[in-house]
Amino acid sequence: MRIERSALPDLAFGAAFLGSGGGGDPYYSLLLAEAAFERSDGFELVSLDDVADDALLAPCGWVGAPTVSVEKLPNGREAVDGLRRLETLMGRRIDAVLPIEIGGSNGLAPFIAAAEMGVPVVDCDGMGRAFPESQMAIFNIRGLSACPSVVTAACGALSVIETDDNNKHERIARALSVALGGIAHMVEYPLSGAQAKATAIPGSISTAIAIGKAVREARAAQGDPFEALAAAVEATGLYPHCRVLFDGKIVDLERETRGGFSVGKVTVEGLKSPGHMTIEFQNENLVAWHDGVLRAMVPDLITIMDSETADTITTERLKYGQRVKVVAAAAPAQLRDAVALSFVGPEAFGYETSFIPVEHLNPETRS
Amino acid sequence: MRIERSALPDLAFGAAFLGSGGGGDPYYSLLLAEAAFERSDGFELVSLDDVADDALLAPCGWVGAPTVSVEKLPNGREAVDGLRRLETLMGRRIDAVLPIEIGGSNGLAPFIAAAEMGVPVVDCDGMGRAFPESQMAIFNIRGLSACPSVVTAACGALSVIETDDNNKHERIARALSVALGGIAHMVEYPLSGAQAKATAIPGSISTAIAIGKAVREARAAQGDPFEALAAAVEATGLYPHCRVLFDGKIVDLERETRGGFSVGKVTVEGLKSPGHMTIEFQNENLVAWHDGVLRAMVPDLITIMDSETADTITTERLKYGQRVKVVAAAAPAQLRDAVALSFVGPEAFGYETSFIPVEHLNPETRS
Repeated sequence: MRIERSALPDLAFGAAFLGSGGGGDPYYSLLLAEAAFERSDGFELVSLDDVADDALLAPCGWVGAPTVSVEKLPNGREAVDGLRRLETLMGRRIDAVLPIEIGGSNGLAPFIAAAEMGVPVVDCDGMGRAFPESQMAIFNIRGLSACPSVVTAACGALSVIETDDNNKHERIARALSVALGGIAHMVEYPLSGAQAKATAIPGSISTAIAIGKAVREARAAQGDPFEALAAAVEATGLYPHCRVLFDGKIVDLERETRGGFSVGKVTVEGLKSPGHMTIEFQNENLVAWHDGVLRAMVPDLITIMDSETADTITTERLKYGQRVKVVAAAAPAQLRDAVALSFVGPEAFGYETSFIPVEHLNPETRS
Repeated sequence: MRIERSALPDLAFGAAFLGSGGGGDPYYSLLLAEAAFERSDGFELVSLDDVADDALLAPCGWVGAPTVSVEKLPNGREAVDGLRRLETLMGRRIDAVLPIEIGGSNGLAPFIAAAEMGVPVVDCDGMGRAFPESQMAIFNIRGLSACPSVVTAACGALSVIETDDNNKHERIARALSVALGGIAHMVEYPLSGAQAKATAIPGSISTAIAIGKAVREARAAQGDPFEALAAAVEATGLYPHCRVLFDGKIVDLERETRGGFSVGKVTVEGLKSPGHMTIEFQNENLVAWHDGVLRAMVPDLITIMDSETADTITTERLKYGQRVKVVAAAAPAQLRDAVALSFVGPEAFGYETSFIPVEHLNPETRS
C-alpha cells in the first residue's frame, strides 16, 4: 500500500496519540518525512501478513530523552547509517523496516530511512504504543535478542552493541544516548518475517493513520474531535476502549532530564471535571490519579491532548496553563497478559499496584 | 626478546610505578599473566624498531574506575574478544599489540591476550605513564584516530565505536564503562608500525622491567629500594629525573567513584619530612603540594609507595595510616612539548597553572 503525502499528517497525529505522551514530538519528523517523500519514489507500507517469513526486518527509532530532541536536531543520516551497518553485520540486505514503537516521532521516522533505502515499512510496531525503555518491546517480552544493534548520532558517531542480555543492551544504549548528547538513533531487535508475525503488534501504522484521518475529518466538519478520536480508536480493534478521563488546566509541572529520560509529574486542575488529575511520566505517561484514585496505568495508553485542537501534547511539550483533556485507551491485548505485564505493567515501573484495565477503573465514564 | 616468567613481577612492579598511581593495581593482572604464561608458548616482546612499517598494531587496556577493578573480576576473554573484532573490522590480522598506557594492570594485560593470539607485544606504549582519559594518549596528541575501537566487558557485551572525534570517543567509552559496571576493556587507536614508530613512547615495557629488577635486587641485597628505584629510573633515559619528594603517613583521604573515574585527594603528614603533602588524583596522581607549595604536576609522574617495601600504592588502594614515600619522576620528553601539554598538562585537568618540570620545582632534593 502506497502512503500518500496527505496521509503523513494523519500518521503523525495518530502516532502521537498512540505514543502516550512519548515517542517524541512529531513536528520535526513530519517535516523530514515530507521532505523525504518529495525526493523519493514515495512511501510503501506492507501488511505484516505479506512479509516473507525469511525476510530480514529492522526495527528502529530514536532513543533518549524527548526533551532533548526538541533542541538537538538530527543530521538526517542517522537511521540510514545504522541500517546500512546492520546489513554489514548480518551479511545481507534489509528487506523492510518498522518502528520499534508507534509514537509521534518514532512512528514516522522509519519511512524516511526506508524511502532512501528503497524498502517498505511493515505495518506493525514493537510496542503498540511508546515505552521509555528498549527492553519493554514485545520482541524482548517474547524472547528475541536486541542485538546486533547499532546506535548512531547527529555528530556521526556510530556504535555497535552486541550482548545476549537485553536489559544490558538497554543500559548500554541509554548510556550511549546520554554520552551522545541526550538523543540517538537505534536499530535493534533485527528479526525475520516469521518472528515479526509471531510477535509484533500488527496494523499499528494503518491504525494511526485511520485515527488521524477521523479526527481531521471531524475537525473539517466542525465536529467534536474527541468524539471522533474515541470512536476511531475503538473501531480499530487494537485499542478496544477509549475514554476522556479528565478536562482541565495544567497547574503544576515537575520535569527533569535524568539518566537519559525525561521524568516528572503533571497536575491538571479540573475545569469541566471536578478535582485534580495527577499524571506521572518517564518519557511516556505512566499512571493517572484523580484526587488520589487510580484512573489509568501502564501499559494502557494515557495521552494528554490540547482541549481545543485535540493535538497530543508530548511530555516534553507540557507547560503550565495549557488547557488539556486526558485521554486513556486500552492497550493491545498482547501487552496485557501476565508475562507482558511483568515487563510493562505498573510494577515494572516501580509502582506497588497490580495492573487494572482502564475500562475496569472507569466503568461509568463515556467520552 | 622472550619475556621470562620471572620477569613478570618485575614488569608489574615497574609498570605500577610508571602508572603514577593509575593503570590499575597489578595484582590480578599478574596472576592472570602468570596463568597465561603457563598455558602458552611464552611471551614475546619486540622492539618498536623491529616492527614492519605496514604491520597492524592494536593498543589496548582497561578503561574505567580502578576502584571498581579491585572488586569486579574480568572474565579473561575481554581483550581477545575485542582484538578479534578489531581484526574483523580492519579486514586483516593484528600483527602485534601494545599497552595503551604503561600502568600496573595495563602494562601486563596485553601479554595475556597476545600470548593467546600468538602475536608479540611491542616494547612501547601510548602514554609513557598512565592517564585517566583515552584522548590523553600520544596517538591523539599526534593526530591519529581512536577508531574503530572495541569495548568489551566481563558480562560478554561487546561494543564497537566509530567516530572521527577522539574526545567523543573517550566520552562514549567512559559512558560504556559506567554502564558495564564501572570497568571495561578497550582496543583503540589501531595503527601501523610506521605510525607507532613516529608516535609511541618507545621502550616503556623494557624500562618497567629494568626498574622492577633493580629494586628486586636491591631488596635482596638489603639495600635501599628507593635509591635503587631512583637510579634505575634515571638510568632509563626515558625518565631523566627521579626524586623522593616526601616521607610520611596518610592522615586524610577523600576518594569517590564519579563519572567513571576514581577521584579524590590524599594528605600525607610528614614523618621524616616536615609539614604535609597533599596530592589530588583522577585515577592517576595529578598534582602534589608541600604545605601549599607546588612540588610536582602532570604530566610528570607522581607515585605513592609503601615506605618499607617500595611497592606502589595505586590510588584505589590508598588507606588512612599507610606509611608512604611520594616519588616523582620527569615525564618522557614527548609529553612535555607545548602541544602535548595542551592535552596532558595541568591546564588540561583544570588547574590554573602552567607546567613546571619537577626538576625545576625541586632543584635541591635528591633521593
